Amino acid sequence: MAGKTAGKEKRKKKGRRHGLRRKVVVGAPPGELVATPDAPQAIMRAVAVSGEAIDERPLEGVGDLAALREAHDFVWVDVVGVDDVEAVRAVGEHFGLHALALEDVVHLGQRPKAEIYGDHLFVVGSLMHQPAVDVLEREQISMFVGRSYVLTFQEREGDCFEPVRDRLRSGRGRIRRSGADYLAYALLDALVDHFYPVFETMAERMDHLEERVYGVDDQGEVVTELSTLRHALLELRRQVWPLRDALNVLMRHDVPIIQPETTPYLADIHDHLVRLVDMTESLRESAASLLDVHLALQSQRLNEVMKVLTIIATIFMPLSFVVGLYGMNFDTSSPYNMPELGWRFGYPVVLGGMALVAAVLVWAFRRAGWLGR
Amino acid sequence: MAGKTAGKEKRKKKGRRHGLRRKVVVGAPPGELVATPDAPQAIMRAVAVSGEAIDERPLEGVGDLAALREAHDFVWVDVVGVDDVEAVRAVGEHFGLHALALEDVVHLGQRPKAEIYGDHLFVVGSLMHQPAVDVLEREQISMFVGRSYVLTFQEREGDCFEPVRDRLRSGRGRIRRSGADYLAYALLDALVDHFYPVFETMAERMDHLEERVYGVDDQGEVVTELSTLRHALLELRRQVWPLRDALNVLMRHDVPIIQPETTPYLADIHDHLVRLVDMTESLRESAASLLDVHLALQSQRLNEVMKVLTIIATIFMPLSFVVGLYGMNFDTSSPYNMPELGWRFGYPVVLGGMALVAAVLVWAFRRAGWLGR
Amino acid sequence: MAGKTAGKEKRKKKGRRHGLRRKVVVGAPPGELVATPDAPQAIMRAVAVSGEAIDERPLEGVGDLAALREAHDFVWVDVVGVDDVEAVRAVGEHFGLHALALEDVVHLGQRPKAEIYGDHLFVVGSLMHQPAVDVLEREQISMFVGRSYVLTFQEREGDCFEPVRDRLRSGRGRIRRSGADYLAYALLDALVDHFYPVFETMAERMDHLEERVYGVDDQGEVVTELSTLRHALLELRRQVWPLRDALNVLMRHDVPIIQPETTPYLADIHDHLVRLVDMTESLRESAASLLDVHLALQSQRLNEVMKVLTIIATIFMPLSFVVGLYGMNFDTSSPYNMPELGWRFGYPVVLGGMALVAAVLVWAFRRAGWLGR
Amino acid sequence: MAGKTAGKEKRKKKGRRHGLRRKVVVGAPPGELVATPDAPQAIMRAVAVSGEAIDERPLEGVGDLAALREAHDFVWVDVVGVDDVEAVRAVGEHFGLHALALEDVVHLGQRPKAEIYGDHLFVVGSLMHQPAVDVLEREQISMFVGRSYVLTFQEREGDCFEPVRDRLRSGRGRIRRSGADYLAYALLDALVDHFYPVFETMAERMDHLEERVYGVDDQGEVVTELSTLRHALLELRRQVWPLRDALNVLMRHDVPIIQPETTPYLADIHDHLVRLVDMTESLRESAASLLDVHLALQSQRLNEVMKVLTIIATIFMPLSFVVGLYGMNFDTSSPYNMPELGWRFGYPVVLGGMALVAAVLVWAFRRAGWLGR
Amino acid sequence: MAGKTAGKEKRKKKGRRHGLRRKVVVGAPPGELVATPDAPQAIMRAVAVSGEAIDERPLEGVGDLAALREAHDFVWVDVVGVDDVEAVRAVGEHFGLHALALEDVVHLGQRPKAEIYGDHLFVVGSLMHQPAVDVLEREQISMFVGRSYVLTFQEREGDCFEPVRDRLRSGRGRIRRSGADYLAYALLDALVDHFYPVFETMAERMDHLEERVYGVDDQGEVVTELSTLRHALLELRRQVWPLRDALNVLMRHDVPIIQPETTPYLADIHDHLVRLVDMTESLRESAASLLDVHLALQSQRLNEVMKVLTIIATIFMPLSFVVGLYGMNFDTSSPYNMPELGWRFGYPVVLGGMALVAAVLVWAFRRAGWLGR
Repeated sequence: MAGKTAGKEKRKKKGRRHGLRRKVVVGAPPGELVATPDAPQAIMRAVAVSGEAIDERPLEGVGDLAALREAHDFVWVDVVGVDDVEAVRAVGEHFGLHALALEDVVHLGQRPKAEIYGDHLFVVGSLMHQPAVDVLEREQISMFVGRSYVLTFQEREGDCFEPVRDRLRSGRGRIRRSGADYLAYALLDALVDHFYPVFETMAERMDHLEERVYGVDDQGEVVTELSTLRHALLELRRQVWPLRDALNVLMRHDVPIIQPETTPYLADIHDHLVRLVDMTESLRESAASLLDVHLALQSQRLNEVMKVLTIIATIFMPLSFVVGLYGMNFDTSSPYNMPELGWRFGYPVVLGGMALVAAVLVWAFRRAGWLGR
Repeated sequence: MAGKTAGKEKRKKKGRRHGLRRKVVVGAPPGELVATPDAPQAIMRAVAVSGEAIDERPLEGVGDLAALREAHDFVWVDVVGVDDVEAVRAVGEHFGLHALALEDVVHLGQRPKAEIYGDHLFVVGSLMHQPAVDVLEREQISMFVGRSYVLTFQEREGDCFEPVRDRLRSGRGRIRRSGADYLAYALLDALVDHFYPVFETMAERMDHLEERVYGVDDQGEVVTELSTLRHALLELRRQVWPLRDALNVLMRHDVPIIQPETTPYLADIHDHLVRLVDMTESLRESAASLLDVHLALQSQRLNEVMKVLTIIATIFMPLSFVVGLYGMNFDTSSPYNMPELGWRFGYPVVLGGMALVAAVLVWAFRRAGWLGR
Repeated sequence: MAGKTAGKEKRKKKGRRHGLRRKVVVGAPPGELVATPDAPQAIMRAVAVSGEAIDERPLEGVGDLAALREAHDFVWVDVVGVDDVEAVRAVGEHFGLHALALEDVVHLGQRPKAEIYGDHLFVVGSLMHQPAVDVLEREQISMFVGRSYVLTFQEREGDCFEPVRDRLRSGRGRIRRSGADYLAYALLDALVDHFYPVFETMAERMDHLEERVYGVDDQGEVVTELSTLRHALLELRRQVWPLRDALNVLMRHDVPIIQPETTPYLADIHDHLVRLVDMTESLRESAASLLDVHLALQSQRLNEVMKVLTIIATIFMPLSFVVGLYGMNFDTSSPYNMPELGWRFGYPVVLGGMALVAAVLVWAFRRAGWLGR
Repeated sequence: MAGKTAGKEKRKKKGRRHGLRRKVVVGAPPGELVATPDAPQAIMRAVAVSGEAIDERPLEGVGDLAALREAHDFVWVDVVGVDDVEAVRAVGEHFGLHALALEDVVHLGQRPKAEIYGDHLFVVGSLMHQPAVDVLEREQISMFVGRSYVLTFQEREGDCFEPVRDRLRSGRGRIRRSGADYLAYALLDALVDHFYPVFETMAERMDHLEERVYGVDDQGEVVTELSTLRHALLELRRQVWPLRDALNVLMRHDVPIIQPETTPYLADIHDHLVRLVDMTESLRESAASLLDVHLALQSQRLNEVMKVLTIIATIFMPLSFVVGLYGMNFDTSSPYNMPELGWRFGYPVVLGGMALVAAVLVWAFRRAGWLGR
Repeated sequence: MAGKTAGKEKRKKKGRRHGLRRKVVVGAPPGELVATPDAPQAIMRAVAVSGEAIDERPLEGVGDLAALREAHDFVWVDVVGVDDVEAVRAVGEHFGLHALALEDVVHLGQRPKAEIYGDHLFVVGSLMHQPAVDVLEREQISMFVGRSYVLTFQEREGDCFEPVRDRLRSGRGRIRRSGADYLAYALLDALVDHFYPVFETMAERMDHLEERVYGVDDQGEVVTELSTLRHALLELRRQVWPLRDALNVLMRHDVPIIQPETTPYLADIHDHLVRLVDMTESLRESAASLLDVHLALQSQRLNEVMKVLTIIATIFMPLSFVVGLYGMNFDTSSPYNMPELGWRFGYPVVLGGMALVAAVLVWAFRRAGWLGR
């Protein structure tokens, strides 16, 4: 019973999982960003790269940006906290971003996508968090890429870009020399890398569920957990698949911001995403097949239970009838009224007869394969 | 039983849900509008926009329109009540609309679509109403867009365009400055916004059904309600998906009426529709998986019921046989006829034997895992 | 039992429903029309239209045609009875039709399609008849369209073209003025209109089946009828879907016989067909979901039956054991042999004990939710 | 039991049905034909057509061919027995065929396909044999078409080309006048015609299975036979579908060997294949739906069996308890010990009470609809 | 029980089967190869071909390569052991390979694919090993093809290229004369040939499972094994299908490295892969259908078990009631208290009555078809 209650609570937790996020104020003109009351202030960090030198610093406002951009080849601005609509609008105005794209940054719950706006690209991606083993939370990561800047927006603290920052700091590889588009690639790559541990946890849960399906104990939660797992896999696929389309957009269209040397790198991410979808599909098929196995085993167990019942009933009902027969109170005065009750060997004969009946029945069951296990 | 009757009534209510609407008089030439007898008169409202000024007024007939259109940049005419065929025909003639398009306005039950007729566009959309929690009614909204006019036809009062009207009145955003195509976008956007609460109600019903599936009480209506919900989701998808195609038509074709600046806005609606379909599909998969869970849990419960029955029968049938055995009326004269009946400790020995049999059976059941829960 | 026999007869009736029609004489060269022995003579009717005048008359042979065609703008020849191969060949030769197309006219069972042969179009369509509520018969309608003629072939009497004929006679609409291609459109439109009542009958049967699934009585035939209905829907779809493709062929290809003004009308038929397929799909999904509901309700009923059985057995088996116990014939001489039989309140105590056992069991069942309904 | 053994033997027969045919010697270079030891000699027949005269004769070797081809317009060589690798190689060299195509002729088990090799076409088709009602054997037919020759390879004697040969002999139709490409069409047409009787046999088995599903007797083999039938239908579809693609290749590509006049004839075969696939799909859906019906009826029968059991147990368990009660050996000395045993009307009252209980239970079952059938 | 444990161990073995292979050090720049500690040294073998002469030798390092390549037309270098990152890098540098492609060589678990890098092709393939009957292990084979070299990388010893090496040594066929692209074809062909025995083993397991499903004994593991088999088939398909796409890339794109004469050979491999996928799909459908059959047979067996139980209970419960009735201890003093107990023929009459009841019930069961088997 405890398991059931726990299951209920889990379901409560994923109550808002249907992907719905209300659009803000109905009737507001599109492109108008409405401030969220009491939103915490956004944190902005800039990394400016110039030849082989970098300048990493927190930003107080967009005021510092102009100087920084002038002094360096390209700059990466990372904004954490998109509820601070004022900050988003200020950054957007500084870089001359399209109002609809800015709206998508603030109105969370967008599907991953890539859009091309004249002189800048707009990419929406997903970062999957797993606060608990069967809870999957999505954080929307938005990215703008121009000739000399990359702009990333994260919902909250705790990011996946630290390895890229490390590489920028250490100067390893070609990341400092290769321009904004290569940096954008490195960030997307880091984003995609974070799908792997999520998938791994699911694969482990799958293995765990398989052991339980084949085991004899507590099957109660298997169906529920399989259903939760399939839902999570679907959710994962729903984030990975459109990202693949987004990369297609970046690779196929003749996008001037993406230099030809960067395209093979994007193709590499594309490859990873295809493999991820592949693996997810494989796991989903395993889950579906495990449900089949579970149901088949259950029906098999029912068959066995029913066989036990039928064997018991088939053996003991005739025997009970016989002993009931000799329990009838027919007068012993009439010679036709169960004379065997008075026979010297009546009781042993009856007992032997009953043993014979039971033996014949057991033999018949064995022949029919019911006792063959 | 009350639940069943209620379910029946529900089904009655959606008796005409198969999407069928008879075409009018068979044999009538196409494009000929046949008047519905006793149809209420249509209500027409015009909003004329000129630079930054607007002129909102009810229209008595199409007579006033010519002057209004001359005096302003563009005009939005909203006609409520398409059963008033005369009014539709008069408006159609005034704007020079294609006869087949007008026929689609009057013959309700069209799929959402967009068609391009020389100098005007024709868009059919859907407004979903939910008069009760599990009733979904569709209202057909037809829209014509020309260079200097937008024309909307609604089936009945109670519209979704009020926020757009408010924006026109207040003059917020670019709606007054941007021409008829932007107004058409704003109206379509308002239409699509109205799918969200419908979807939300369904998501809530889904959550409610999940709780009931996992609960112990009244499962009776779960299957029926899941089936109704899936049907409603399918219906929703059937309205949203072709609307997406319609937007593709407006965006892709080289439509002269749609100005290039408006295209990103249409792409935004397109995005919303794709997400809606996504969410709907997700909910449908949840519903399918919930049905699986329900059936699996039910089969599990059957297994448990059968185990209880088998355990009881397997324990008591042999015991009943034994007590029946000693109830046989064999003559006590013969020494072979159940001498144990006369033993001093016969009764306790028999009782003990039966207790032993029961204990062995319980142990066997426990070992087989039948009592392990 | 009567129901089962009826079901069997129904199945007999649709014995030849697998869509198979033997091709005629194996080894005959293609395009050679082999006469059916004893075929009734074909009935030919011509309607010649010239400006605003029409000339409607029966045709004895193709001899009259030449004069009629010369005197009028265009002519519609309707041939009823394609088994009269001689007549078909004569007409074909008069109009210079392709031998393979003529073969398709005579060899019934063709899929709906449209083919373009130099100076004429060839369209195959289907007319669905419903001689009984669950019997669906297909009649093949073939149509040739040239610049100045429309030629229709029907399998048998009883046609769907009467409304078009009426319109030609009355001169309403543009049918007399608009040429052979518009007439062909009108005939196709009439053909498609005849799918609606067929669909409607199926929708009604579906509603009827739903009521039976949720009702308590006679479920026996539900599965069979659902299966028949799904088959009929599939058949309907199989006729409608390729017709849609045929219309695509007529609209998309640059067909010189179809004038540009006629294309929107063809698009209108296309629209109707798409909606019909939509509605059919919707009904098929309803049928599939109703089967699920039926099976789920059945398994629920089985659960309830088993619960009743288990409750009864669990209560009465222990009680029967107890009463059997006190029916044992142990000698009352030994003080250990059921002394309670001689007690003053032995019987009431035993009765009370059994009532207690029963009460405890009922309480346990209620707690487990088995009596909760 | 006999049925089960028969089923087993059937399965044995189709043991090699998974479509696998080993490629010959691993490590052999591609295009090298390895002779099968002890293969029977191939039989070659030539039909040479020149204007309106034909010359039909058996061929001893390829030596005679050169003269024959020179003297006539085109020649058809039919080779029976592809295990005679030498003969195949000799013919291939004479006509200058590509080594890989020849390899496909000899390595049976190719999918139907059409390939274009410079100056000749290569088509692989299938001839389905039905040696027994549920055995489906495939014979590979390979065909090469050049400007002045058609070359067919058959696995073994017993061909489907006799009607074409008859037509060549009789000179009916345009077969002698129309060149090698039209002859190739006629041969393909004859090949496709042979799918029809195979399909017909399956349709008959389907009808037979339907009758058994709805009947009351021996359901044992239904599932197995349905499964076999579905497998055979899949196999049929697997041969027909790629042949359709092959015809697309012949029609669409700008193949110089195919004259424009022949294309409509190929389109006609294409049409037949599409219809065959259609009919096969229809039969497969019928089979799937019949399996559903079978399972649903089976579950219905289980329900009815369980109802009978429950009714019997529910009526007789309480009654058996009552009679057991009055079989208890309580001392009649105590006034509380079942005084009714001594009453004058005790027995009739007890009997009446039991009849009442039984009647109430029967009434309850009737009310619950369990006895409603 | 032993079977269950074995099943568990099997599952353990394929614990890492979800296709996941971690990408190496997170944060490492792309294209940077990180050395695996303690990796065994790679074994390199070169075969240089010059006209009709070959030179086959082991390579110590890339130093010898330059001379070898200069002296011969083309060279094939086979590297076994990709964990030796240094060797891979050295070879890569010698041939000027793209860093991302080299990364794919080392990071195992890539999907089969073909990529075109300026002057060389990169193909990833799979070699399936079957160390045990139900274990499927994948080895990644990577191949680079340039104008004058073929480069293959294998994970470990034990290769599938020996037949090609033999052909090179013996000089049979055109392999020595035809350049690097034909050698690459021969290697790919050898790779694809190794899918056949894997498929064959699966087909045999399938046949074996079929026999067990239709047999009467031990059904326990059937579902599990079917599930494992379907998983393995899916895995096989997952390796074969993308390889087909890779061949499409090589054939369709205008790849300068592939000479036109080689294209038909690639088409031949493509054909084999399509057939393999076809056969795999066929086997998967067989497996799905076998699961259906298994479940249907199981439900049929349950039906039969329940019928036995019901027949036994229905016959013996009324009889037990009767014998219990006459076991009641009603006082024989009252004339209404079971006078038949004292009748002369009471006992035979009761026995006969019970026999009659049993006979009627048996007759009823036979009529209902329950005893008809």
